[in-house]
Amino acid sequence: MKDLWSISTAEHTDGKETIMRRGNVYQIANGYMGYRGTLDEFGAAQLVGITLAGIFDRVGSAWREPVNAPNGGFTSVSVGGVELSALGDKVVRHRQTLRFANAMFERETVFKSKGTELTISSARFLSAETPNLGVIRFSISCNKAAKVTIRTGIDGNIWDLNGPHLRRLSAKKRESVLLLQGFTNESSKKVVVAEAADVGFGKVGHESKGNRNLRVIKLSAEAGKTYTFHKYFAVFTDNDAVRKPIVEAAIDTVQNARLLGYEACVARQSAQWQEKWNRSDVTIEGDDEAQLALRYSILQLLMVAPVRGSANSIPARALSGQVYKGAIFWDTEMFMFPFFVYTYPEKAVELMRYRIKTLNGARRKAMTEGVGNRGAFFAWESQETGDDACTYFNIGDPFTGRALRTYFRDKQVHISGDVAIAMWDYFRLTGDDSLLLEGGAEVILECARFFHSAAYYNVEKERYEILDVVGPDEYHERVNNNAFTSMVAKETFKIAIATVDYFRRKHPRELRTLLRKLRIERELPAFHDAARRLFVPAPDPKTGVIEQFDGYMGLCESSVEELKARMIHPNEYLGAGQGLAVPTKIIKQADVVMMLELFRTRFSAKIKKANWEYYEPRTEHGSSLSACAYAIVATEFGNLDFAYKYFLKTAKIDLEAKYKVYVGSVFMGGSHPAANGGAWMTAVLGFGGVQAGEKRIAVNPRLCRKWKRLNFHLSYKGDDFRMNITKTSLTVASSRTNARTHTVLVAGKPVKCSPGSLVKVKYRQAR
Amino acid sequence: MKDLWSISTAEHTDGKETIMRRGNVYQIANGYMGYRGTLDEFGAAQLVGITLAGIFDRVGSAWREPVNAPNGGFTSVSVGGVELSALGDKVVRHRQTLRFANAMFERETVFKSKGTELTISSARFLSAETPNLGVIRFSISCNKAAKVTIRTGIDGNIWDLNGPHLRRLSAKKRESVLLLQGFTNESSKKVVVAEAADVGFGKVGHESKGNRNLRVIKLSAEAGKTYTFHKYFAVFTDNDAVRKPIVEAAIDTVQNARLLGYEACVARQSAQWQEKWNRSDVTIEGDDEAQLALRYSILQLLMVAPVRGSANSIPARALSGQVYKGAIFWDTEMFMFPFFVYTYPEKAVELMRYRIKTLNGARRKAMTEGVGNRGAFFAWESQETGDDACTYFNIGDPFTGRALRTYFRDKQVHISGDVAIAMWDYFRLTGDDSLLLEGGAEVILECARFFHSAAYYNVEKERYEILDVVGPDEYHERVNNNAFTSMVAKETFKIAIATVDYFRRKHPRELRTLLRKLRIERELPAFHDAARRLFVPAPDPKTGVIEQFDGYMGLCESSVEELKARMIHPNEYLGAGQGLAVPTKIIKQADVVMMLELFRTRFSAKIKKANWEYYEPRTEHGSSLSACAYAIVATEFGNLDFAYKYFLKTAKIDLEAKYKVYVGSVFMGGSHPAANGGAWMTAVLGFGGVQAGEKRIAVNPRLCRKWKRLNFHLSYKGDDFRMNITKTSLTVASSRTNARTHTVLVAGKPVKCSPGSLVKVKYRQAR
Repeated sequence: MKDLWSISTAEHTDGKETIMRRGNVYQIANGYMGYRGTLDEFGAAQLVGITLAGIFDRVGSAWREPVNAPNGGFTSVSVGGVELSALGDKVVRHRQTLRFANAMFERETVFKSKGTELTISSARFLSAETPNLGVIRFSISCNKAAKVTIRTGIDGNIWDLNGPHLRRLSAKKRESVLLLQGFTNESSKKVVVAEAADVGFGKVGHESKGNRNLRVIKLSAEAGKTYTFHKYFAVFTDNDAVRKPIVEAAIDTVQNARLLGYEACVARQSAQWQEKWNRSDVTIEGDDEAQLALRYSILQLLMVAPVRGSANSIPARALSGQVYKGAIFWDTEMFMFPFFVYTYPEKAVELMRYRIKTLNGARRKAMTEGVGNRGAFFAWESQETGDDACTYFNIGDPFTGRALRTYFRDKQVHISGDVAIAMWDYFRLTGDDSLLLEGGAEVILECARFFHSAAYYNVEKERYEILDVVGPDEYHERVNNNAFTSMVAKETFKIAIATVDYFRRKHPRELRTLLRKLRIERELPAFHDAARRLFVPAPDPKTGVIEQFDGYMGLCESSVEELKARMIHPNEYLGAGQGLAVPTKIIKQADVVMMLELFRTRFSAKIKKANWEYYEPRTEHGSSLSACAYAIVATEFGNLDFAYKYFLKTAKIDLEAKYKVYVGSVFMGGSHPAANGGAWMTAVLGFGGVQAGEKRIAVNPRLCRKWKRLNFHLSYKGDDFRMNITKTSLTVASSRTNARTHTVLVAGKPVKCSPGSLVKVKYRQAR
Repeated sequence: MKDLWSISTAEHTDGKETIMRRGNVYQIANGYMGYRGTLDEFGAAQLVGITLAGIFDRVGSAWREPVNAPNGGFTSVSVGGVELSALGDKVVRHRQTLRFANAMFERETVFKSKGTELTISSARFLSAETPNLGVIRFSISCNKAAKVTIRTGIDGNIWDLNGPHLRRLSAKKRESVLLLQGFTNESSKKVVVAEAADVGFGKVGHESKGNRNLRVIKLSAEAGKTYTFHKYFAVFTDNDAVRKPIVEAAIDTVQNARLLGYEACVARQSAQWQEKWNRSDVTIEGDDEAQLALRYSILQLLMVAPVRGSANSIPARALSGQVYKGAIFWDTEMFMFPFFVYTYPEKAVELMRYRIKTLNGARRKAMTEGVGNRGAFFAWESQETGDDACTYFNIGDPFTGRALRTYFRDKQVHISGDVAIAMWDYFRLTGDDSLLLEGGAEVILECARFFHSAAYYNVEKERYEILDVVGPDEYHERVNNNAFTSMVAKETFKIAIATVDYFRRKHPRELRTLLRKLRIERELPAFHDAARRLFVPAPDPKTGVIEQFDGYMGLCESSVEELKARMIHPNEYLGAGQGLAVPTKIIKQADVVMMLELFRTRFSAKIKKANWEYYEPRTEHGSSLSACAYAIVATEFGNLDFAYKYFLKTAKIDLEAKYKVYVGSVFMGGSHPAANGGAWMTAVLGFGGVQAGEKRIAVNPRLCRKWKRLNFHLSYKGDDFRMNITKTSLTVASSRTNARTHTVLVAGKPVKCSPGSLVKVKYRQAR
């Protein structure tokens, strides 16, 4: 039977692109940091990266990007003065493994040098319990007696796209703890790495040079004996809210771990992860390929979920490196947030806290970007402060070598609506209003205010319009009345009104404070007006098709193949005003269909089918966000074969890592957490057919052909459920700890689910 | 003393570009047609063109363009079987002359072939009295007896950019009259050319082959004797409103002219032109260069002024060929109309009738272009029907070879305001309301309606805004609140209101009919509202500078030189969304300054100076419309040296013909009637300081250094004046036929000018 809880490979190669891809596939992370799936002996050239969440730095005029920490996990082994590397020619065999159960990375490599076989094996994990901590087991053994030198400690020579980000690197040693610290360029934030190791063999010395702070172990290894040591490293930065100096905190963290010991650390890691999997795993029977891909996707999401209390979010390439500037896009709210809010609300709340934290940046953007001029216009590419990291010119033109002006930053206004919708959904699905009270309501009102300041009134048509925007389909910039954007804006007004209504009933005092703080009371009637009279393109009465934006239907017909055939240069961009797609109906990614996915309770299956069938052949799927939107909507009107194909494509994107990693000369590689989220959405919301409404959950399963059983956990209004779906029955297991009895709508039939109950319902799968 | 009433050249060359330029410089025209300044013996390869006004045709998918008529002026001479051409190697000397006094073209060429010198001299003009008629005198003489063959008649092999436009060409002979007729491709309009000649020597035969219909004259020429014949050709098309078949009309026209005789025809031509010059000439003392250039410019305008009753307008390249599709742009209203309305209102009225004629096309455009959706959105490039000949993709990208999307057609909405303003100015300056009654009022109301349907209301700022437009500066497309455009739109609302008010007082019955026809009465309050609350960017309180559009001040500083230095390809376009000028403040042509020129009574000299000084260094002057706008405004705050330099540049553009004639592979050569008009405007409105208001003319002369005297005629409210300006005095001669006494404001001082009076006023030139 195939192991569906790990991946492993025996490949080793020194092709830089393979190293890069391997680094992504085998990465581990714990929300605080990501550690690329590189090997112990690797350095900067082999793309070692320990990418930190929520701390950014800029060197000169290059893009600001997340800071990579010095590598506290470094260990190299020399035999006879020759350093061994899995990329070198002394390798007999190599295997590396990523274990899903506790997010551990393991490697074993056998080297042969001058007749001696030497085996290195190691395991590492980033602690799910102690976010700053990394734990490593390292062993060597030889088949003959040999003189071996092991260097282990902290390597400050690390991979950076636009670095180096740490100035004044200094190495210290405090008792047996090694330290390497430095300061970011832009805001002089201190970053410190501490490392402790319990080496019970050899002669241990110390070596500190060239940004490395290492202990040197000289060992006369006996034949057949395994020498093992454990090392613990901790990363702290000035962003960490600790009561003592961060150097002390780092030392304490590694010392405490060492005292606890490796085995105990592993046990705690496994327990933590057991809990994560209990909440978030999805099991699929009958389809190992889908099971492995989906579980791997879920692993990715669980690993990069922000640390409690951090108010961090998940960047578009998560913690796999510095690509996309480590910035947070709409991806998080639209494609990752659903997974967390349905399975792990404590993580969902952090994602939204990040938006509260960056509200002032969004206010600054609204004031300066010239679209609206008030309220909150969230950054298209958001870093620490919420000021926009997106440049106005950010795609290379291969014909001129110049950067093309795009309007992602200044015209993709839907981002503010995406944030408001997720903010409200957190409350709507969890029933927990604490987020609204701690700033969520303020975000929502400011987003509505922004849309009001950006909307124009069409006097002749007696309606508000959202003009001059870029929708999800970035190939058609500066369009008017984009259905997705206008729908999202209209929803924001409705949510703002609902928020005020809710506060009026439940939190009148907080409402008064908030209204006074924002001086917004006079504007509320305008929100009502806009919620009623903001224009959203409606389905054509005859065809049911919704026009993506004003004039879309007048564009030229074409096909993706035809456009590609007309390309002169392989890297030419299809949008940016003059690209080949611009005068045509060819779109980059789901746009109207994205709206149907996001607002799937508002449109009939007939409308979904009509629009899906109209737009799908006209979609390039040039974004990893596109396939899953089409897949989810496809489940809703019964095109399960398509949905399955695109589900697999989405779920396997990071596992197979076959995506393009360079666009022009720009490195784009890394993980795709939005696709990971999209895979979960397609499985649970699509095939599982889950729709959580205001008052209850509805489930309309539409299992694809191969799947015999789909089993997943759901969290709703603070209570927990496990759904077990077959082709003919659905079993709802309600947690014994649930606070109340829920009515679950199974294939349209209301079913009472009391705490601790197990209710099995027969159903007929919708066609 | 230099002759300031003609130009001539002794050059002859066969470089195609020189032939092309020469053809423009020496063209003649009579409003019905233009005859390029080519020689009698020239054919298609030498760019012979007789371009007809107001008749268009399209072949396949090429651009629709004006039809060129078969060349009824063709004559070639052979000696000993060798055809003589001024471009050949037998030329001893050559001279060609354009006489301004009666718009006649003359040439004399001496050939030497096998020891014999043969002189060809000819003269030709297009009748100012009989628009369809061309008249030619042709003479030859030899210094030795020689056998000469003369072929004269109609040559159907003519130059076309996107032709041939005449199908089923057929040659006929009716008595002695030669005929060549054909039909346009698109709408099968018949075009016929008739030719008659009175040849009193030699043996005359007939030859008809290869699209030529010729008489062949075999002459045994005696030494020293001059043989002269006269020929008359007439062009008629199905557009001509004649009571008989156009073939008959053409035959009658040439027969009548032949009966009248050449000398009488010349006498009538001279008398007609005497009258034109009386009205429109401007004399400058002290500056022959300026005098010649300005008079040449005026000649161009007088030659291409539309035929009475034709309701034709003047294309951007007038009748010099088919460049720019023979289309009418805003150039006509903004840069040619002032010359005509001030000196020759009967021609101005035709220009505006053209807009009335094409109102339905403008209505169609409004309905389909997606900017507004009602009223009249005039074509950016207007041909017969008023449907837009401008393409969405009309500039070649040298990097990709593709055409760039520009927004000239769909976003340059100011065209409708330009039309409305000129329509109203005709009434305001002539006092003649017949144009308003015959459709001008309808045009004005429909333009206002268009702007109302295109305007959006900014609820927060409580104002209408005109969004997403292209102003005169075409490098910055799709901008909001362009000062020029918004000012013009606002003026249109005011004019619409004034029109209704005027009709209410003077033509209540016609008003009722009009309001009913347009169903527009309910909309009038909205026009009042828009006239009051439409936003136009105001001068900055500190600097006086008006922001060209929202966000202009935030663009990068640069210089024209810097941009040019950054160009990779000499033909790369600086606009179209990704061009080098787009992110910078560098503008193509006068925009804010164009507004200050158009509305020059509304802004103080201080504001003009501030904006001129801000924008001039940022202007590329990439359009021939730019220099004169800056020149006129420069006169108003005293930068006379700059004004003079740019006046000369503008006035000499067609005379020197040094402009670029190819942009990429697109031929752009031809005359520049807008610059011709701009030269007149700079001289009379700028240096002369003429401002005609609602009730009276004001004159604030600001003669440039060189000019001792400036003398011109003005027509105002149906009365005529001659202004004679020196550095210290201004003499107003009022025509004896004037209907009333006018008050002329001379340098701020009111002066009574009764019919037949000559009033001399001392003044001090403003600084």
